Amino acid sequence: MTFLFNSDARRGAVFADAFARELPDVPFMMDAATVDPDAVRYLITWTAPEDLARYCNLEILFSIGAGVDQFRLATIPEQVKIVRTVEEGIVRMMQEYVTLAVLALHRNLPEYLAQQRAGDWHDIPQLQAGSRRIGVLGLGQLGQAVLDRLKPFGFPLAGWSRSPRQIEGVTCHHDEAGLNEMLAASNILICLLPLTEETRGFLDADLFAKLPKGATLVHTGRGPQLDHEALLAALDSGQLSAAMIDVTDPEPLPAGHPFWSHQKIIVTPHVASVTQPATAARAVIENIRRHRAGLDPIGLVDRSRRY
Amino acid sequence: MTFLFNSDARRGAVFADAFARELPDVPFMMDAATVDPDAVRYLITWTAPEDLARYCNLEILFSIGAGVDQFRLATIPEQVKIVRTVEEGIVRMMQEYVTLAVLALHRNLPEYLAQQRAGDWHDIPQLQAGSRRIGVLGLGQLGQAVLDRLKPFGFPLAGWSRSPRQIEGVTCHHDEAGLNEMLAASNILICLLPLTEETRGFLDADLFAKLPKGATLVHTGRGPQLDHEALLAALDSGQLSAAMIDVTDPEPLPAGHPFWSHQKIIVTPHVASVTQPATAARAVIENIRRHRAGLDPIGLVDRSRRY
Repeated sequence: MTFLFNSDARRGAVFADAFARELPDVPFMMDAATVDPDAVRYLITWTAPEDLARYCNLEILFSIGAGVDQFRLATIPEQVKIVRTVEEGIVRMMQEYVTLAVLALHRNLPEYLAQQRAGDWHDIPQLQAGSRRIGVLGLGQLGQAVLDRLKPFGFPLAGWSRSPRQIEGVTCHHDEAGLNEMLAASNILICLLPLTEETRGFLDADLFAKLPKGATLVHTGRGPQLDHEALLAALDSGQLSAAMIDVTDPEPLPAGHPFWSHQKIIVTPHVASVTQPATAARAVIENIRRHRAGLDPIGLVDRSRRY
Repeated sequence: MTFLFNSDARRGAVFADAFARELPDVPFMMDAATVDPDAVRYLITWTAPEDLARYCNLEILFSIGAGVDQFRLATIPEQVKIVRTVEEGIVRMMQEYVTLAVLALHRNLPEYLAQQRAGDWHDIPQLQAGSRRIGVLGLGQLGQAVLDRLKPFGFPLAGWSRSPRQIEGVTCHHDEAGLNEMLAASNILICLLPLTEETRGFLDADLFAKLPKGATLVHTGRGPQLDHEALLAALDSGQLSAAMIDVTDPEPLPAGHPFWSHQKIIVTPHVASVTQPATAARAVIENIRRHRAGLDPIGLVDRSRRY
């Protein structure tokens, strides 16, 4: 019942230590070339290997990240459980990044940066937090954790998810009518949706038109969810006033792409949140224990929803 | 027993409403030219008027901001109480700004902005919050409120103040030995000190040399506390790696000043925190009630400490 680690050696060393300590009866391997494929019960990886079928006794395929959009689910044998890794480290980094982005947009940082470049010292009228309404697309573990961190600042908070949710202190919406209602009341919109066929191109001209004029966007979902041309048009027309973007399509963002030099866009190179090996190893080990005890792993993917 | 409001009319209108509602027996005036000087018991202002002595029955001189460094204390009659205005709005804005600045420095935003300008997409090694030690200079109402907001992110927190303090979850230092100890352990140093003779030029080359190499600075105190040349030298030598600066000397920052174009400095035009009229009016009214009941107003200045 071997665990095969298929990612970078630095993170692998942290996993190896944790397995030796916590699950000594599960052989830990990092070399697909020398492993006995029949022995592999667990595989962690970012993209699925081409020859996945050779692991005929595979029970769980772990994504090393919070998303599984890099897998072609239809090519993964039905009996294999697919599990996302949403661990403490990735959650904490996302809380930091989104709080940074929300405060940067709330406090007009893109405009102040433009003023700094121009050597221009003057204050911009400042809305108070109680009048700056936040809308979060996606109310899974990451969305809820981000809302937790924003709460003490006093922003009115709302969120939208596919299935109905109840979160204290957050106006929760679902379905299409709920989406439109939330968009109409979101001065700062945060995208934390998983990438699926339904969310590809989700952030488009129609959606931007439903926001209040001058709204801003934080995009920490996946690049293909954003219609890049529509964002530029919305910023140029004033429908949106600024955006902080961590994911693009393609990545890296090509040389000369208008996002690089746009005064109203802050772009970071897909660094909002990265799986942290120590906490990820703990989460994976806990999931193997659950699985062996007959419980569903945390982060088990529903193939019909594709996340 | 008139209250004289000597600041902008927009904020004055909000104060006038609150006084009419809450303290109808205190006449509220905004025009120094027509007021009966003998009747004035309370005066709120930013700078003290030249002819302060004409208000011979003045009991309280309120600063409309959190600082009193704009007053020449020796020129204010001994019997007049001097009171700072640290109200909910100014506290909330400072919490926002400092959290924004700390997260921006923690998440390498100045470097990512430089990369954006250069069209360069690559990730920078990221320290986790548990390894990023924060030191706050000044543990008054603002310093404590800022620490409250930083706590949930998991940064190790320390603070330094003139008199000993105890704050849960914060390593508190005082005196010079304590200062050196805190500086040696601060990856992000936040200055929230009041401006006094002791703190003028406080942030100088000696102080920067006591920080760990590559530390960063958030400056939201007062411009004259910072040796601007020493900051530039520390950034150029790598002793400091970045700074977010809201106050300068002079203000506005002059055209061509090196802060404007420095890649490692984000500068904002003294906007971190501004007295909010609705909450300030409530705080001032509460202080008049306390004074009339024989209690010390909140924010009463100790003339010997000059804050």
